[in-house]
Amino acid sequence: MTRCLCAALFLLLPFSGYGQSDSAQLRRIADEVLLRARCYDDLRVLCKSVGNRLSGSPAAAKAVQWGEAAMRAAGADRVWLQPVDVPHWERGDEQLLLDFGAGLRPVPVLSLGNSQGTGGKPLSGQVVMVRSFAEFDALPNVAVKGKVVFFNYPFRQDLVNTFEGYGDAGPYRWRGPNRAAARGAAAVLIRSISTGLDDYPHTGSMRYADTVKPIPAMAIGNFTADKLQQTCLSRTAYAQLTSNCRMIDTVRSYNVVGEIRGSEKPEEIVLVGGHLDSWDVGEGAHDDGAGCVQSIEVLRTMKALGVRPKRTVRAVLFMNEENGVRGGNAYADSAIAKGEKHIFALESDAGGFSPRGFSVDASEAPRGDAGDPSTSAVAKGKRLSTSLGYARQLRFLYLHDFEEGHGGTDIDPLRRSNPTIVLSGLSPDPQRYFDLHHTAADVFEQVNHRELKLGAAAMAGLVWLVAEHGL
Amino acid sequence: MTRCLCAALFLLLPFSGYGQSDSAQLRRIADEVLLRARCYDDLRVLCKSVGNRLSGSPAAAKAVQWGEAAMRAAGADRVWLQPVDVPHWERGDEQLLLDFGAGLRPVPVLSLGNSQGTGGKPLSGQVVMVRSFAEFDALPNVAVKGKVVFFNYPFRQDLVNTFEGYGDAGPYRWRGPNRAAARGAAAVLIRSISTGLDDYPHTGSMRYADTVKPIPAMAIGNFTADKLQQTCLSRTAYAQLTSNCRMIDTVRSYNVVGEIRGSEKPEEIVLVGGHLDSWDVGEGAHDDGAGCVQSIEVLRTMKALGVRPKRTVRAVLFMNEENGVRGGNAYADSAIAKGEKHIFALESDAGGFSPRGFSVDASEAPRGDAGDPSTSAVAKGKRLSTSLGYARQLRFLYLHDFEEGHGGTDIDPLRRSNPTIVLSGLSPDPQRYFDLHHTAADVFEQVNHRELKLGAAAMAGLVWLVAEHGL
Repeated sequence: MTRCLCAALFLLLPFSGYGQSDSAQLRRIADEVLLRARCYDDLRVLCKSVGNRLSGSPAAAKAVQWGEAAMRAAGADRVWLQPVDVPHWERGDEQLLLDFGAGLRPVPVLSLGNSQGTGGKPLSGQVVMVRSFAEFDALPNVAVKGKVVFFNYPFRQDLVNTFEGYGDAGPYRWRGPNRAAARGAAAVLIRSISTGLDDYPHTGSMRYADTVKPIPAMAIGNFTADKLQQTCLSRTAYAQLTSNCRMIDTVRSYNVVGEIRGSEKPEEIVLVGGHLDSWDVGEGAHDDGAGCVQSIEVLRTMKALGVRPKRTVRAVLFMNEENGVRGGNAYADSAIAKGEKHIFALESDAGGFSPRGFSVDASEAPRGDAGDPSTSAVAKGKRLSTSLGYARQLRFLYLHDFEEGHGGTDIDPLRRSNPTIVLSGLSPDPQRYFDLHHTAADVFEQVNHRELKLGAAAMAGLVWLVAEHGL
Repeated sequence: MTRCLCAALFLLLPFSGYGQSDSAQLRRIADEVLLRARCYDDLRVLCKSVGNRLSGSPAAAKAVQWGEAAMRAAGADRVWLQPVDVPHWERGDEQLLLDFGAGLRPVPVLSLGNSQGTGGKPLSGQVVMVRSFAEFDALPNVAVKGKVVFFNYPFRQDLVNTFEGYGDAGPYRWRGPNRAAARGAAAVLIRSISTGLDDYPHTGSMRYADTVKPIPAMAIGNFTADKLQQTCLSRTAYAQLTSNCRMIDTVRSYNVVGEIRGSEKPEEIVLVGGHLDSWDVGEGAHDDGAGCVQSIEVLRTMKALGVRPKRTVRAVLFMNEENGVRGGNAYADSAIAKGEKHIFALESDAGGFSPRGFSVDASEAPRGDAGDPSTSAVAKGKRLSTSLGYARQLRFLYLHDFEEGHGGTDIDPLRRSNPTIVLSGLSPDPQRYFDLHHTAADVFEQVNHRELKLGAAAMAGLVWLVAEHGL
């Protein structure tokens, strides 16, 4: 759009009421974000003044305070903290020594989240490398027992959508430690779930099965994994792990909620959110500081423009997405207890990169105990097509990708409160995410201000459309 | 595509001949690039071992040697250097002092490319700020004569496509110095043509009109421009410019050309290229090292896969895009002199970011003296739709944007050799480009390996389709 055309639109629409077309209102919303957004500055404060903020940590408590203040500054009609009891895992000191032929030397390492440490004592063992679960399963028990199993499965760089690659390699982190523990391994190393051409280890969640004795599990970066692979191919490799990580207790924490009350149907809620917790390295900038500040920006933009939505718009900063999803579940439990009706929920949790579109999930499964009866296939199809139609109105923000797909981890539980809710996820460009995800490199400087704002503009537009017209 | 499906495709197509469908061949090409590309490593060498490489500089000569070696390493059938005489402008030392209220202090600055310096002597003057050409034209002569005119036009952040913003603000760099010189100004400062929330000055080309006496012209970063604006609004501001930049002479340089000869119609040439020269700051990583290494990657991929295209595929690293386009013109002159028939030319010169699609230009204007007679509108429409149809076959690389539009500065002159040539440009995501463009920050570390390769994969696919099927 040229400047002249833009100016002309404003001349034609000097009074910003509800009479103008949707497209003019969407352009106003986008201009407000692109020209006067606070989200980039908010993200700087969150990253630099709070920093990383794992559930249960003092920094997470500070992040809750920050979120509450940022919601108020954005002009929310009402801001509150919703209690959530979260797990409290601590990393403590950790070290991995590997022998590449010149004796044991320290390498960059991160224990997997929720994993158990060595109790501070060195755990030494011979390294057994496998490329896949199939190779692992083919090993005789004697080759596993007491050994350090190295799951050396590389991220598939040929997959264009890196989230497919994450889904493909993810099981080695989620399930590898359990499978090795079940066969009596002493510890697990994994090649990080990483697209990076670097040596950043990527942490991330794992969970021990009740049936196994927990063993330590650590991630190494791609360069270290390459070297360990070379070593394993030429001779016997040894590792020494020392760590203090442990699950401590449960801590009272909070989701941060802010809302603008709807003018006509306040009982219908349109939710937008991200998660406030992060892993305990880097600054949680893309994962998911970006989604938090974009969600706050949606409220700020509406208030700044004097837009009062017909339905209630609620921004939620969820606690504990990374290692428990307690916040998402607590929010859904509360919605059920209060009889709140959420008609639409949008999550931004795929990074603050250039937005490419939205995924939309109008399925009715899984439904919880409190679920309404299922609606017809026709009604489902209508909700899907209406939602995708709204999303397509954001094409002018250079969005193209509007597909049926997953909404978001924190909003998934909301389907328990209302089976006919439509869930949606912002789809940013996926190429850089898994270079940074869960690493020390996920810092504010990796976020581009225009990309972050463009995502916020898209979110504000979609939320406004649903709040205005319903589903 | 899942791993299993991918593997299955390979099992079905063990012998890579020409019998398989286009889509399978395109997937093979993409996998070769995504898994085994050399382009990212090539870019590292170009950026770190050669560095920035303004036309006529010793580094540009070194870049030519690098390009020749890289083309040979990629396996081109034939590699040659095509002579081009280029302007040789040198920056020399430069300094700008501004008084923000505490006396004259140095600020980050870059003289505009091709501009004349102060001859090493301080040039002092009162600063006159204008926000636009309209404001400038409204000034009385006495307010301009002998003054330092500050064109303080901000980049329009509300425009989603930053190339529109560049086109909008660009005239202040291209024409501002001439307009100020014509009215007797002593010098010009411009707010950089920059989306950056930082203080990097952005250089770039300007050219003096024959009718004016050249005056020095410098760019300042956005933060400095903000401070100077504040100062100008509250009191009289002063500047002192000192610079030694000058146009020295003309230097013999070269385009670097490599080709794979076509197996069936070698006389029809499909060109892919970028420009080898850069501005004299940073490393010219996105502008346009990326386009160079991607073009070389197209050749490498075909050779690595044993793909012999039916038509000749030629990769060209053009010299002197930034301040003269002498390479593009010399290449077109040579094509005319040799009677070469280029049917399609693709340029990558918008950064090594995540590819979003291709623009296609099938117009026949402007035509040179040697042009063939115009074809019919029907024929033109067919070339356009065929080209866009090829481009759309790359959708599986998460591309969506296929539009009629500009091809590229270096390939534009080729229309003089063949009016029916189709020109095309890779369209990467545009959000970050004008934070970096023509600055010290345009360095290798700003390029993401997956984004760069995905662009190369798209280019290789499009070039292969045209070389296989023609237009």
